[in-house]
Amino acid sequence: MAQYCFGIDVGGTTIKCGLFDTSGKVLDKWEIKTRVEEGGMHILPDVAESILRKAKDASIPAKDVAGIGIGVPGPVNEKGEIPCAVNLHWGQKCIEEELRTLSGYPVKAANDANVAALGEMWKGGGEGARNMILVTLGTGVGGGIIVNGRIVAGAHGAGGEIGHACVDPNEEEACNCGGHGCLEQTASATGIARIARRMLAQSEKTSVLRGQEITAKAVFDAYKEGDQLAADIVSVFSDCLGRALGNFSCVVDPEVIVIGGGVSKAGDVLIQAVEKSYKKYAFSACRDTPLVLAKLGNDAGIVGAAKLILDAVGS
Amino acid sequence: MAQYCFGIDVGGTTIKCGLFDTSGKVLDKWEIKTRVEEGGMHILPDVAESILRKAKDASIPAKDVAGIGIGVPGPVNEKGEIPCAVNLHWGQKCIEEELRTLSGYPVKAANDANVAALGEMWKGGGEGARNMILVTLGTGVGGGIIVNGRIVAGAHGAGGEIGHACVDPNEEEACNCGGHGCLEQTASATGIARIARRMLAQSEKTSVLRGQEITAKAVFDAYKEGDQLAADIVSVFSDCLGRALGNFSCVVDPEVIVIGGGVSKAGDVLIQAVEKSYKKYAFSACRDTPLVLAKLGNDAGIVGAAKLILDAVGS
Repeated sequence: MAQYCFGIDVGGTTIKCGLFDTSGKVLDKWEIKTRVEEGGMHILPDVAESILRKAKDASIPAKDVAGIGIGVPGPVNEKGEIPCAVNLHWGQKCIEEELRTLSGYPVKAANDANVAALGEMWKGGGEGARNMILVTLGTGVGGGIIVNGRIVAGAHGAGGEIGHACVDPNEEEACNCGGHGCLEQTASATGIARIARRMLAQSEKTSVLRGQEITAKAVFDAYKEGDQLAADIVSVFSDCLGRALGNFSCVVDPEVIVIGGGVSKAGDVLIQAVEKSYKKYAFSACRDTPLVLAKLGNDAGIVGAAKLILDAVGS
Repeated sequence: MAQYCFGIDVGGTTIKCGLFDTSGKVLDKWEIKTRVEEGGMHILPDVAESILRKAKDASIPAKDVAGIGIGVPGPVNEKGEIPCAVNLHWGQKCIEEELRTLSGYPVKAANDANVAALGEMWKGGGEGARNMILVTLGTGVGGGIIVNGRIVAGAHGAGGEIGHACVDPNEEEACNCGGHGCLEQTASATGIARIARRMLAQSEKTSVLRGQEITAKAVFDAYKEGDQLAADIVSVFSDCLGRALGNFSCVVDPEVIVIGGGVSKAGDVLIQAVEKSYKKYAFSACRDTPLVLAKLGNDAGIVGAAKLILDAVGS
């Protein structure tokens, strides 16, 4: 019976690694550099080498390792294949097969945002739930959908790509994805700053935001201090995000909605603002679905990756 | 090894019943009346009696019956329980337990729209897929979500209630659900007629629609004849539905989107109009997801109910 597993979260600059026991306790945590040169060909060998060294140093025999879960930034399908991962300089790659060959362990791969959702469900804001939406408000807006305890990967690995739901068909500026009016354009850190600059230019209200660098954090800080224009900006953000979450709820009707990412550091005031709007727009049966803050921060990826492999091997 | 199963679709006036073999072939099909009087207390006994008589007439022994699948109009949870079903005059009811006791067969219950989605996936427009969205455009807008071959029932039985996604936050008229700007208010048969009346009143264009009763069918008939105002109405409808479907796609990323219900009888011109809008709004990875017409018509419910029980008992 395996007692250990590895959870890996591959980012564009750093690879986060964790050694876990099968209850989900972190026994060790470390990072290695993401070497994207030469088409990212060193990334999986580096991961395998680092894991095998860790297992050797900790005197863990192969039979005690359930396997490796790994989250990567790109559209991973059910077979653990990816057509490309821009930030890793990868083209088509069979992640599971390659890392299995390199390490000798069973491997399960999935999209990093989906894996983070699994982590938040297992040990974070969604603990105890088996149906969950995670939305991460960072530079962009990401997400992950869990149904019956499993990640919804989707037919093209695009399950949970909720940042690209169109929330404003009249928006003229383009999103990074090429679309117009994506949720990400209003609810991400850069989106909030964009909306804030637009509203500052259009309004003549005094505001502590004038003359300082406009960031999502500055907007929420000003909001907490009672700044009226900041309140207007937060209102646009929360109306948009609450409405989008209401729409996602009538698709999968989750037990809980978890909000993470850098913007969520604004804390309870953010939850309260979004919840007010969510209740306004959500279908009656879903109106009381709790909105909560993510709890795991940067560890969500490695924790979720550990859960991913444990589920896959049935541990 | 069971060779047969029953698929039941309970509506507000009629209960559709089917006897199937385990390959999904319909061996017999019949209807009984829905007796909603006395809090709908006769409905499940009537179903059980009708099934037992059919089995007896066809000389099918109990050991050859896999069980009964049943779709009902209301929010059924994973345990086959329902808090209420307005059209059946039911309050809280444990459907599976009650029908199992009455019939002696295994029973699996689910929401009727979700069951219809399962039917369309098994033998209809989504045949061969395991991840699908069904949207039904009838008096209202219903839907069903299938992920990995299974219905997404949701935490409150509201999975697939996509008719109540808010697509127009500026809409002032209320939806039947109490919300404002629901998809159903624009994309249902009644919604299309509502939009058509509004646009006829606001426009001075000549149109074959003027002076006749305004229905969704009349709008699509006029559209097929080249009527310009009808084209404007279809454009509003398809822009709204295509955008909503694009948003649902980035949640669950289906292999195929199936469009059913009375409005879908407009046929290929409807698919073409909605697909054009869908492609405009969908996230790039989901842009080529096919939109197809439902195939099973009124049989989707009994076919899906048969599949529901076969999946539940592992046949």
